[in-house]
Amino acid sequence: MKKLEEKILKEGSIAIGNVLKVDGFLNHQMDVAFLDEVGAEFYRLFKDAGVNKILTIEASGIGIACLAARYFGVPVVFAKKSKSSNISADVYMARVDSYTHNSSHDVIVSRDFLTKGEKILIIDDFLAKGNALQGLVSICRHAGCEVVGAGIVIEKAYQGGGDEIRRQGVRVESLARIASMSENGITFID
Amino acid sequence: MKKLEEKILKEGSIAIGNVLKVDGFLNHQMDVAFLDEVGAEFYRLFKDAGVNKILTIEASGIGIACLAARYFGVPVVFAKKSKSSNISADVYMARVDSYTHNSSHDVIVSRDFLTKGEKILIIDDFLAKGNALQGLVSICRHAGCEVVGAGIVIEKAYQGGGDEIRRQGVRVESLARIASMSENGITFID
Repeated sequence: MKKLEEKILKEGSIAIGNVLKVDGFLNHQMDVAFLDEVGAEFYRLFKDAGVNKILTIEASGIGIACLAARYFGVPVVFAKKSKSSNISADVYMARVDSYTHNSSHDVIVSRDFLTKGEKILIIDDFLAKGNALQGLVSICRHAGCEVVGAGIVIEKAYQGGGDEIRRQGVRVESLARIASMSENGITFID
Repeated sequence: MKKLEEKILKEGSIAIGNVLKVDGFLNHQMDVAFLDEVGAEFYRLFKDAGVNKILTIEASGIGIACLAARYFGVPVVFAKKSKSSNISADVYMARVDSYTHNSSHDVIVSRDFLTKGEKILIIDDFLAKGNALQGLVSICRHAGCEVVGAGIVIEKAYQGGGDEIRRQGVRVESLARIASMSENGITFID
């Protein structure tokens, strides 16, 4: 999505630790008019996939998922991050290591909100090493749901997580794929 | 909002500790078509208030704020919950005690995203004792912003937080106001 790449170049910056800061439009302040276009783009890509539900993960994913869900006419379920390790019979759970925060946590979804046979589109703002996405895919499989795809706003392609998940047969569509990133600039995969 | 009250009665339940569970449509699974109507209702209530920006708090508030922001044509900023107490010069901060989780945490907003003189509409899913809302109001005031109002989906009016904040001169509009709640049922303030 050309407009997204331009926005990343114009409004993004690179913080210490090679972290891409896009908190002016994506994950602290949200440019809702633009993110609504992002939602429409996900709909264009996945409208024929028979999506029953959108699954995302708190916090930044929720807004984008809701804006996209309007186009699909489906509900959103957001996975919750849990610091406590009390496994309950009521939830599906996956362990996720966070690259950005150098920590790990459990991600949980109530069994009430994923039903066997449902076709799930996963939406998230970032994909780097792919741990969060991998966790969501694993939760869907435990629930007997079909993951029809993953819609990602920004993929740090050079970290390899996206391609690893594609190799597992999941259709991953990222609206901007970063090939390289340094103080010299950002380049994208076409 | 009649449809919201009906939805609470039909789909909500009361969990241990007198917690209202509406996670089937509001704060785990999100009924986006319905929450889009909620967004439109906030727009009807606040469309003449000159809103420049919507402020909410992660996680459940984000989706509702984004759906409402489409109608207003403004960006959303979401306050982040922080367990760490490292006060940075870059952020506005407030301390918030959570009634539901029996804990407290800091709530932070980057100084980059609140500008003196901006008219802010605060949106959140729940208002009980009002600690989160109070924290957001306090952050806006530190930033020199004007809080033109707060749009709340469900107010537990019997806990008093809403009226306390109204007494401070903030316009608080709650789409459902719970007068009482017990195993015998839920009653609303008209």
